[in-house]
Amino acid sequence: MTEAVKDRVIRVPVELGERSYEIRIGHNLLPSVGPAAAELGARKVAVVTDANVAALHLDTLRRSLAEAGVGISEIVLPPGEATKSFRHLEEVCAKLLEARIERGDLVVALGGGVIGDLAGFAAAILRRGVRVLQVPTSLLAQVDSSVGGKTGINMRAGKNLIGAFHQPSLVLADSSVLDTLSPREFRAGYAEVVKYGLLGDADFFDTLERDWENVFLGGTARMSAIATGCAAKAAIVARDETETGERALLNLGHTFGHALEAAVDYDGTRLVHGEGVAIGMAAAFRFSAELGHCSTGDAERVESHLRAVGLPTRVSEIPGEIGSAAHLLDLMGQDKKVKAGKLTFILVRGIGQSFIAGDVPPESVLAFLENWVRR
Amino acid sequence: MTEAVKDRVIRVPVELGERSYEIRIGHNLLPSVGPAAAELGARKVAVVTDANVAALHLDTLRRSLAEAGVGISEIVLPPGEATKSFRHLEEVCAKLLEARIERGDLVVALGGGVIGDLAGFAAAILRRGVRVLQVPTSLLAQVDSSVGGKTGINMRAGKNLIGAFHQPSLVLADSSVLDTLSPREFRAGYAEVVKYGLLGDADFFDTLERDWENVFLGGTARMSAIATGCAAKAAIVARDETETGERALLNLGHTFGHALEAAVDYDGTRLVHGEGVAIGMAAAFRFSAELGHCSTGDAERVESHLRAVGLPTRVSEIPGEIGSAAHLLDLMGQDKKVKAGKLTFILVRGIGQSFIAGDVPPESVLAFLENWVRR
Repeated sequence: MTEAVKDRVIRVPVELGERSYEIRIGHNLLPSVGPAAAELGARKVAVVTDANVAALHLDTLRRSLAEAGVGISEIVLPPGEATKSFRHLEEVCAKLLEARIERGDLVVALGGGVIGDLAGFAAAILRRGVRVLQVPTSLLAQVDSSVGGKTGINMRAGKNLIGAFHQPSLVLADSSVLDTLSPREFRAGYAEVVKYGLLGDADFFDTLERDWENVFLGGTARMSAIATGCAAKAAIVARDETETGERALLNLGHTFGHALEAAVDYDGTRLVHGEGVAIGMAAAFRFSAELGHCSTGDAERVESHLRAVGLPTRVSEIPGEIGSAAHLLDLMGQDKKVKAGKLTFILVRGIGQSFIAGDVPPESVLAFLENWVRR
Repeated sequence: MTEAVKDRVIRVPVELGERSYEIRIGHNLLPSVGPAAAELGARKVAVVTDANVAALHLDTLRRSLAEAGVGISEIVLPPGEATKSFRHLEEVCAKLLEARIERGDLVVALGGGVIGDLAGFAAAILRRGVRVLQVPTSLLAQVDSSVGGKTGINMRAGKNLIGAFHQPSLVLADSSVLDTLSPREFRAGYAEVVKYGLLGDADFFDTLERDWENVFLGGTARMSAIATGCAAKAAIVARDETETGERALLNLGHTFGHALEAAVDYDGTRLVHGEGVAIGMAAAFRFSAELGHCSTGDAERVESHLRAVGLPTRVSEIPGEIGSAAHLLDLMGQDKKVKAGKLTFILVRGIGQSFIAGDVPPESVLAFLENWVRR
């Protein structure tokens, strides 16, 4: 790795008026958590993390915060999607109160999407809102969940059904910590990177098709891809913070994906979020093609790239039984993207040309699913 | 009761930009819940209430909603402060999801402060925010908790420590339902009415001193007092929605009051919220007088009015042991009104002249409490 990569920090602003903040993407950024907390005026922080991430990175944060003269409490949770529950939310809230985290202090969410969503939500409701510094350690969290202020937990009825909009005060995305991810986890996050190309940036998708191996390797290609994803998300969030319109485009692949995750009961050994999104994006293109909105060629090109990096594109790739098309449709009905009984889907006119279809009749989804679940 | 009273509805606007709404105060307003829900475009509502209120008023709401063609689900909780817990929050959220309450639907909070705070909070976090119609049935809820968007639950560490700002879409305050309250509960709510006079409106306090018996009897005096209280709160909330400044004035009497409630472990047989506030307001005036901010005469006048209506003004009026001054101070430290280790108190320069003292040293509070808890 060259010095240029080591020292380069890409700054992506998220423009939200008085809730504006910055995403910093760079190599070896974890040691800057202490100075960043001090810069934000925090006397003490509570670091919320999981046992896996704690083993890898908590020492670095401890040292950095100590050197910056910032006090620290630590809340270490079990890893895994099951942690995004009411029970752990209550636990985190109680421990933040024990640590006497006040409005001027800071919650530091150190981990992947589960930790970011849970700790962000706890910060949103602690004393009706304390500040949160997101330090995402998975690719998925860096390009998606840590940016934009969506926080929440899962319910039996579906993912993220309980939550809040709570913007972070700063996001520090250390691209070098991604070297500690398993290949499967990196790939799953990469699905969200691809999403930004598919939903609105055909050139970016072209680049990824050509250059994905370098993104997987690390260095500047990876930093650039993360920054491009963050910038795309930041622009959409700035125009529609609370998802009354355009922000829904970010759900490309997610209505199908969430239903699949619910169908496996959020069992990460069978399907992780990014894999659900990959299958969901493939489905969104196939469904769009069947409805005559986009070409079959585009749908095939999408599937081909996802397969090239090792992501699943078909329901049959998920181990075990998934259930009937009707069951999946029912799970979609519990998704937040429902309005007056009609389903809202993100469909496409081609690569980089997504749109919100707010009035998809359940029957046409069912007809599509009947064939698709058998593929 | 005259026709004029029966037909009169006082409308108090709460000006909050796109979150603006109206408080309607009138006699026999419960039957207007159905038309109001239809007016807000809801196809279905979930009514959250407690068993006591359900027995008295749920039938009226059912009829009104059915006549307006609005669907209804019912969530009936146990009465009492203990219901403002994580456990019941989870229960309400799960039941709202079961009822498939979506973003276009409506949560109706039918009850006192506990129900309003809990149902309002559940609405705030359900699918990251659905609308709520507040139908407060206690005086306290009508003049205070249903207005201004503060929602939340209690934790072992203190009251309302977990919550959200979530403005209702409408508040319907039926002044005639207050006839079903026990005298103790009505008096407790009246403490919050008095608060508006004490914190910023000396004329209103004069009126209450003269006319309180008519407020207790009902009719126009009661409607006016509720409207004056709501208008005072609405004006403050409009200027400072999320309590970064002036809104803290509404906490007059509450720092002491919350500590007392915590000290009795929220046992409503010993102390209800309004009684804590009454004792707390008496304490705020005494403390202000000791610090030389206001006259002892004003402190005595406040105590005298509170005693006249049957409200407590001293710790010794609470049955059982309260604990030491140091213990109470510790309970205050867990209150949200803490910044960098200093206590924030609402103090007074006289009746109607409150101010925020953001830097009260814990030692001077302790010195005051040492004497005061023995009175």
